[in-house]
Amino acid sequence: MAYPQETFKRTYVSTTSLLGQRRAAASANMITYQLQILRDTGRYDAFNLRWQPIYDKVPEYWPIADHLFWDSDVGKWIEGACYFLMGESNPDPTIDGAVKELVEMIRKAQRPDGYLNIHYQVVEPGKRFTNLRDMHELYNLGHLIEGALAHNQYYGNNLFLEPMLKYVSLINDVIGLSEDQLHGYPGHPELELALLRLHHHTGDEKSFQLAQYFINERGNPDGVDGRDFYTVEAEKRNEALDWQPVWYPAPRSHWYQQAHAPIAQQESVEGHSVRAMYLLTAVADLVRLGSASADLEEAVTRLWTNMVEKKMYLTGGIGSMKQWEGFGRDYFLPQGTDEGGCYAETCAAIGVMMLAQRILQYDLNNKYADIMELCLYNAVFTAMSLDCRKFTYVNQLASSEKDLSERFGWFRCACCPPNILRFLGMIGGYLWNVSESNKSDTTQVDVHLYAPATFDFETLAGHASLRQECDWPRDGNIRFSLTGTIKNIQLKLRIPGWATSWGIVPALPHQDVINGYLTITAEYLAVHPGFTLTIGLKPRLIAPHPLTNQQTLTIARGPIVYCVEDVDNTWVTDHFRSTCLDSRCIKNNAVTEKEMTDPSLPDERYVGIFITKAAYVVDFTKLNTNAFIEKEELDKSMETAKVINELKFVPYYYRANRGGRGMARVGLKKWV
Amino acid sequence: MAYPQETFKRTYVSTTSLLGQRRAAASANMITYQLQILRDTGRYDAFNLRWQPIYDKVPEYWPIADHLFWDSDVGKWIEGACYFLMGESNPDPTIDGAVKELVEMIRKAQRPDGYLNIHYQVVEPGKRFTNLRDMHELYNLGHLIEGALAHNQYYGNNLFLEPMLKYVSLINDVIGLSEDQLHGYPGHPELELALLRLHHHTGDEKSFQLAQYFINERGNPDGVDGRDFYTVEAEKRNEALDWQPVWYPAPRSHWYQQAHAPIAQQESVEGHSVRAMYLLTAVADLVRLGSASADLEEAVTRLWTNMVEKKMYLTGGIGSMKQWEGFGRDYFLPQGTDEGGCYAETCAAIGVMMLAQRILQYDLNNKYADIMELCLYNAVFTAMSLDCRKFTYVNQLASSEKDLSERFGWFRCACCPPNILRFLGMIGGYLWNVSESNKSDTTQVDVHLYAPATFDFETLAGHASLRQECDWPRDGNIRFSLTGTIKNIQLKLRIPGWATSWGIVPALPHQDVINGYLTITAEYLAVHPGFTLTIGLKPRLIAPHPLTNQQTLTIARGPIVYCVEDVDNTWVTDHFRSTCLDSRCIKNNAVTEKEMTDPSLPDERYVGIFITKAAYVVDFTKLNTNAFIEKEELDKSMETAKVINELKFVPYYYRANRGGRGMARVGLKKWV
Repeated sequence: MAYPQETFKRTYVSTTSLLGQRRAAASANMITYQLQILRDTGRYDAFNLRWQPIYDKVPEYWPIADHLFWDSDVGKWIEGACYFLMGESNPDPTIDGAVKELVEMIRKAQRPDGYLNIHYQVVEPGKRFTNLRDMHELYNLGHLIEGALAHNQYYGNNLFLEPMLKYVSLINDVIGLSEDQLHGYPGHPELELALLRLHHHTGDEKSFQLAQYFINERGNPDGVDGRDFYTVEAEKRNEALDWQPVWYPAPRSHWYQQAHAPIAQQESVEGHSVRAMYLLTAVADLVRLGSASADLEEAVTRLWTNMVEKKMYLTGGIGSMKQWEGFGRDYFLPQGTDEGGCYAETCAAIGVMMLAQRILQYDLNNKYADIMELCLYNAVFTAMSLDCRKFTYVNQLASSEKDLSERFGWFRCACCPPNILRFLGMIGGYLWNVSESNKSDTTQVDVHLYAPATFDFETLAGHASLRQECDWPRDGNIRFSLTGTIKNIQLKLRIPGWATSWGIVPALPHQDVINGYLTITAEYLAVHPGFTLTIGLKPRLIAPHPLTNQQTLTIARGPIVYCVEDVDNTWVTDHFRSTCLDSRCIKNNAVTEKEMTDPSLPDERYVGIFITKAAYVVDFTKLNTNAFIEKEELDKSMETAKVINELKFVPYYYRANRGGRGMARVGLKKWV
Repeated sequence: MAYPQETFKRTYVSTTSLLGQRRAAASANMITYQLQILRDTGRYDAFNLRWQPIYDKVPEYWPIADHLFWDSDVGKWIEGACYFLMGESNPDPTIDGAVKELVEMIRKAQRPDGYLNIHYQVVEPGKRFTNLRDMHELYNLGHLIEGALAHNQYYGNNLFLEPMLKYVSLINDVIGLSEDQLHGYPGHPELELALLRLHHHTGDEKSFQLAQYFINERGNPDGVDGRDFYTVEAEKRNEALDWQPVWYPAPRSHWYQQAHAPIAQQESVEGHSVRAMYLLTAVADLVRLGSASADLEEAVTRLWTNMVEKKMYLTGGIGSMKQWEGFGRDYFLPQGTDEGGCYAETCAAIGVMMLAQRILQYDLNNKYADIMELCLYNAVFTAMSLDCRKFTYVNQLASSEKDLSERFGWFRCACCPPNILRFLGMIGGYLWNVSESNKSDTTQVDVHLYAPATFDFETLAGHASLRQECDWPRDGNIRFSLTGTIKNIQLKLRIPGWATSWGIVPALPHQDVINGYLTITAEYLAVHPGFTLTIGLKPRLIAPHPLTNQQTLTIARGPIVYCVEDVDNTWVTDHFRSTCLDSRCIKNNAVTEKEMTDPSLPDERYVGIFITKAAYVVDFTKLNTNAFIEKEELDKSMETAKVINELKFVPYYYRANRGGRGMARVGLKKWV
């Protein structure tokens, strides 16, 4: 049960939960909506390999043609559609028919030698594998493989998997360490993690070896006759030394794609954040499998730590630099465009969850699962409207006139929407993981996330089922019940790092919490197959690291990060840039919470948070600035600040669903 | 007396003052040091037009060859050398000889048609005027003209001026509005301001018209057959649409050189900061001359205001973006590299002073002169060592491991060191300006800066002389005395905006302060040709605007901004990033000042500032961060902070002169 794509098949998530609600909305709206977009934009027909007018368009970001990732868009949609089809007693024939037709087109499009790529078969024939760095051939293949795995899971046939294995075989011929092979690796990692899953699913050894090769060869400074592959490849293309795609930090800046050094030697997490997460997911998977060197394992830990301590927003978002869609320097985490940038791409947050899920299997620690949950409810959930028809690509923590808090129907580079689709399709797979415990006769279930859900699994003794009943994350009581063959089952329940109180009823003989996971022993379960875990949820104040130079405060409650919106606080005119929060608000009982719904969204229960007379608006524009401000002037501006009677906060994921003027902010300036 | 280059000739600055000390050090060390560098690097001989090995070098920043600005380096050195020669009773024959030899080479190098440029005559003959945007031909000419003006002032002959007028005549033929002319303008402004000075000095009308044309045509979107000049020029060069020099924000981003719109329509100050300042200096000069449209005058005010309120460091430095050596978005002013960048180029600060000096002549207001003085003592003075042998190009407010607080002997792109030379040469010209007052029979002297100095000037009635005796900025008492024909002379004395107290002895009948300038009437002066102005100087706390997200405090005293250095505070290990300052330190009498010198620099008196038990070190690295920090954790880290017994501050210009480990910081985190 190493992959969520498998675990989810045995997980039923109740539609009453926040998770279940989103999944149900995706099932009802997102699949068909995205299918229509695939049709409308030409993606659906692209594997017909007929010329489309868009292929003539000068790309906005040369050389990345607008259609360059179409293969992956289709692959991800098929993958997501299949996950949803799996749970349906009456599968939608339109969806089923579309999947089948797409797979048929893909099969027909494949070249006899196994090659398959829309761009290089239609637009630039003859140039395949000449620009692994920028042109996403291998990335596209990765997503097609993941689609094929889901297809195989649902349909039980090899119609999609077989051409993929053939393509992998071709890649294995063309790329590798032999003298006549290209010593290359994907510019945008994804294929690596897909190959490991392909190997797991099919046993295909070539896939495993290729993934291992990609990971070990990446960033080799001596890969091609004493020089690195991308430099040699660029020279072969006669790429000018001073040329750079506009999104590159600088010409030949290989750290953009994490190829500036072998992975094991990388000191900090750098460059394009989605690439970094997909790559590290594969590396962590290799570690889990015992097939990675010790220094690779250390690198995963080092890069993860650098990320969560110095390069992650408190929503779980990563990447502050728009130019390269990636990481800035340590502690560079402005909240929005007018403060210096905030990117926090949706796919990157999904990538963090993928990476955390892999690491948790060899290093069970709540520090990974806390981040996984943080991303889930904040950085990922904020990226779709509640009806799952609109999306964000960038997930800023503060809006500005230039970048309002709003969502869109689609994107030219459309990686995020279908990524959300496939993610929600298998969301249940992130809740838990089953494995053999250290005690050889015991089956262990690690429970990472809480949600009303049921998990069926096998033990050495037979079938078992674990059920959670709760209203998490709105309420902190989680009722567990284990049924079936409950002998020799041990549970590990995550106690979140932010939890200030928690308890188990009936009481445990002793509380054994290791790395943030509470052990529920087989002995206890034999007596108490049903028990309740209670985690205290109350509003907290959290902050980014002081070295981010922000001095802001954010309201959080459980795993949910809050924000303010103009629709609730209609007086705002400046995106809450001048709204300040008194750090004593909780101590002074100025904070109240209330479960509520809004009239326009009657099914969306949430806990609203209200701050009474402990927030202020300072008119910073009136400050007398001539290169600097005298401290006395600053003091005066605070003295004349306007107190806000009631400032309302809503969950960050809830933003931009009720109209308004697109003003929202997560972190408010600290008042005192 | 419109230009400081003229005013300084009648100004004697005492070598006892801070200004005078720097000028004396430049006279003693900088001229010959830089001459040696010109010789060692090939610049001195370059006008011989012989091939040099460096011309073969692949430029670091293509297409900007390393020697591209050599013409201007030579021009600026000649200019500076001539200013210093003017004041010498025994001119150094080496310097005199070098100037003469350089001018002789320049004369010989000029083509019969007037063209003169090292790069295009030696390296790329035949390509002249094909890339006005990037290749600095017109910029180089501007600096040669300024050199020629200084040369003419000192030598009284036309040996340098005559070839310049010939070159200007060629430019006038090649560039302009006629159909057969290039409708272009300089990529790096400088020629505009030089042409206006050339016109003032020689009366050459062509120079004036050409400057006016450059200013009015710049950014014209319809300049060439309905398109802008730079786009058409780029097409003629077959420049790829996606290509960009690495320092450009994006391909064809004309705002890099302030050509994205006509100047009158520019809403905010953008792009390369030196270019912006040189350009606006010329525009303001045109305004002063009554030859600019009202909307150009408004643009100068608008762009100045945008700069000083939202884009200027509290040292007077401008430009936070290293990539384009220029302005970031509003309020984006990180202190150093590890906080997101700080550029504050030396030349840009000199440019701010040039611009302020022009504006002050038509809008006498201390808000301009305060900034002029701020730049002088901080952003500019920090850019050279006290012995004037070492320089900075970038003037960060905080050091980091990557960018220590240190100075260098020279730079590949060496615009700053010779700019400091010529600036110090005529520094006296910035102190004051003489003009006819509104009352037609009265001569008015505006005193912008205070320093022990004497100014000789003419009135309608005869010669007069104004003398300041003071130890400014160490002490706030300034003794003025007017001698000679003192009839009908009126003074305007700047009262700095930061001054919390000031007074005149003998007392004025009434204090008439208009826009920060105190009027000393002819009537008063007739009775009191000697009087004393006292401006209270005591340590103050200043801060950047709150929307910079910094919440830092800085010590200032008079016009001097202070910093902390590791050489005084030897315990520091993190560049003072975790050093915090209690905002109540002044109120609580924790701040003391002491005039002092350091043993290694016995002649450099300064006021040291000491903070006793009101600064703290917080070990931020110990904070438990997993994407965020609980507020309680933050509070705890403050509770366990270490109090600093005595934190010593020195003037920012004083930094990096006494060894140490290169750690310095201007703004410290606000403690409470």
